[in-house]
Amino acid sequence: MTAHKIVMLVLDGIGDRPCGELAGMTPLQAAKTPILDQLAAEGITGIMDTIGPGIRPGSDTSHLSLLGYPPESYYTGRGPLEAEGCGIHMEHGMIGFRANFATQNDHGLVTDRRAGRIHDTRLLSAAITDQVDLSAFGVTFSFASGAGHRAALALSGEGLGAGVTSNDPKEDGVAPHQVMPVSANPEDQKTAAVCNEFIRQSTAILADHPMNRARVLNGESPASVVLIRGAGEMGGFEPFQQRYDLSGAVIAAATLVTGIGKAVGLEYIPVEGVTGSTTTNLTGKVQTLMATLDTHDFVLLNIKGADEAGHDGHAIEKRDFIERIDAALALLLERNDCIIAVMGDHSTPCPIKEHSADPVPVLIRGDGVRVDLVQAYDEIACAAGGLNRIRGADILWILLDLIDKTHKYGT
Amino acid sequence: MTAHKIVMLVLDGIGDRPCGELAGMTPLQAAKTPILDQLAAEGITGIMDTIGPGIRPGSDTSHLSLLGYPPESYYTGRGPLEAEGCGIHMEHGMIGFRANFATQNDHGLVTDRRAGRIHDTRLLSAAITDQVDLSAFGVTFSFASGAGHRAALALSGEGLGAGVTSNDPKEDGVAPHQVMPVSANPEDQKTAAVCNEFIRQSTAILADHPMNRARVLNGESPASVVLIRGAGEMGGFEPFQQRYDLSGAVIAAATLVTGIGKAVGLEYIPVEGVTGSTTTNLTGKVQTLMATLDTHDFVLLNIKGADEAGHDGHAIEKRDFIERIDAALALLLERNDCIIAVMGDHSTPCPIKEHSADPVPVLIRGDGVRVDLVQAYDEIACAAGGLNRIRGADILWILLDLIDKTHKYGT
Repeated sequence: MTAHKIVMLVLDGIGDRPCGELAGMTPLQAAKTPILDQLAAEGITGIMDTIGPGIRPGSDTSHLSLLGYPPESYYTGRGPLEAEGCGIHMEHGMIGFRANFATQNDHGLVTDRRAGRIHDTRLLSAAITDQVDLSAFGVTFSFASGAGHRAALALSGEGLGAGVTSNDPKEDGVAPHQVMPVSANPEDQKTAAVCNEFIRQSTAILADHPMNRARVLNGESPASVVLIRGAGEMGGFEPFQQRYDLSGAVIAAATLVTGIGKAVGLEYIPVEGVTGSTTTNLTGKVQTLMATLDTHDFVLLNIKGADEAGHDGHAIEKRDFIERIDAALALLLERNDCIIAVMGDHSTPCPIKEHSADPVPVLIRGDGVRVDLVQAYDEIACAAGGLNRIRGADILWILLDLIDKTHKYGT
Repeated sequence: MTAHKIVMLVLDGIGDRPCGELAGMTPLQAAKTPILDQLAAEGITGIMDTIGPGIRPGSDTSHLSLLGYPPESYYTGRGPLEAEGCGIHMEHGMIGFRANFATQNDHGLVTDRRAGRIHDTRLLSAAITDQVDLSAFGVTFSFASGAGHRAALALSGEGLGAGVTSNDPKEDGVAPHQVMPVSANPEDQKTAAVCNEFIRQSTAILADHPMNRARVLNGESPASVVLIRGAGEMGGFEPFQQRYDLSGAVIAAATLVTGIGKAVGLEYIPVEGVTGSTTTNLTGKVQTLMATLDTHDFVLLNIKGADEAGHDGHAIEKRDFIERIDAALALLLERNDCIIAVMGDHSTPCPIKEHSADPVPVLIRGDGVRVDLVQAYDEIACAAGGLNRIRGADILWILLDLIDKTHKYGT
């Protein structure tokens, strides 16, 4: 057996439905993908319900499933995973939130939920981190900027719950809501009070911040309020290395995916020029993958752009981006020391511009793999493959078995 | 409906991966198997995870699964099942162990863990049974010889646990270990003390036994110590006849498989000349199967040799043995009163010489079966079959339904 490493290549939102612009084909069927097709021809294929048939996956729940941490047991909301992805080290029991910088007018109404698509909010986050004080509650916090207008908040302390609502009004022209507890539990009551105090203090700090004053002078929307949502208590993840006896790494642009990877113990490997969209640095990602395989046994590489095109409903753009992905993957063909698995985390069909429960195509190629007759990587061809229909929670175990890292159950 | 009986033919370790010696085919693909192929052509096929996708089965857990006793609920270690297979009637709650006769030198070091591959240890087992006395612990025991150097031990009494280690040093040149409890529970402490006393007394009996003195004179390794392992508490199995309303029988060479069969209430039908290897009496097994079908509704026939060839990594020998199996199965084609199901209990790929989680091919042929388009019985062809991908715990229920022995759930 020469294969002793695993490449898990997740083409985010790759699955689709028949598209009118593509004469009833899916973008993946319509795309010319000689590299992916060669991998399919040299390997075994199938379709996969990343969570279960008819269950419409989120990117968070599906990635947990693909990494063998079933979301039914491990998913505790997006907030703590985003916080991890923004660089906050989340300990088990901490309460995490996704956050946005938004613009509020003089009447307290939200006028832009993305603060004019502000970039690089690190100075604002640093000011909040320095000046907000929650010690009256016995609570400490971390606040970190993410990409663009995004950020994350995490709370630590005794007696905090995750059952609280968001202050995000979800539409412009409305004032931010109060954060409310969703139960009478004192833990949820306390978290709600802490959140409202955090928002009060941070709003005051932002109002007076030089960066915001400069934005107003420039005619830009200031980042005058923090909207938080997706509260969740950080779960306890058995570390990936311990669970699978593999050193693992994650390469991804989306903070959610890097957050999940870091939460389970994968090392985050940054790549210059990645954007999480169709303009991303694909070649850089694949080159980084190759380098990371020299030092790690398992690499999760997430390529996000197809999902974005699906959300936008742009079938032709999705097809074209898939062709660019394919061209960037040529280096994979030379790796015979790896089991290479290509899959989606979910379908994002252009006709509905949203995730769907349609299964994703999957291929596995490498030493020891039973080769089926399928010659192409797409939703229809792979449905005739030798894997038949599998579940996301099983895929990593199937791959582990191929590199001889499973343990016999019984004798 | 003419079919009212079930043949479950388990080709032990039949599944494989592409083998270099066979130009990338599996042994089952490479073998000429006209009988199995005819059964496949006349029936429905599929692939099966005997426990679950990516789970590497043992022979014990997989057979429990195939018989509809899911190992998650019913598996309590190999010891009690081996003991049952060695002819000890295991009651629920008894503690069972696998045992080996081994050779110890004058310094107490193990020099041969198989005692010179001794044959027929029944006189030794009788001496141990007669002379070892554990009544000081309020414990009774059974000790029985298996094939070659193998044996089994079972303990009965109040307050015994199964949480103990083995005395087997697992390598030559080392003294046997003390049996240790794995917890502070008094039950485990008691079992450990009982085991150590059993080993002390049996070692003294073996030292002085005429058979061993004769072996030493002949320059053979004496069976001077008993090594025990695989401790488990016998589970409670709802009897097969009661569970499925079928009289059942098991035909197998491996004591583990006969033990599992007997544990769930199948009648063990011995066959002359079976060996559990590629030299076994295949025709005798199939003739016995035919005779047993006159008196029983369900027969589990296990043919072991392909597994052995897989463990040895001999792809060509495995292919050739599969051809011999196939030739011996001709009588099956004439049985139209049976649903015939052919499957593996797990794959034992020659390239890895160990069980793997790769699914096994399965076929079902008989009256009422939907006939698919697959014309061959092998790992790749069956993956395109009408059963798709099923689980071992489901197969017996599928067969029961074909002979009208399932009950409607609801109305």
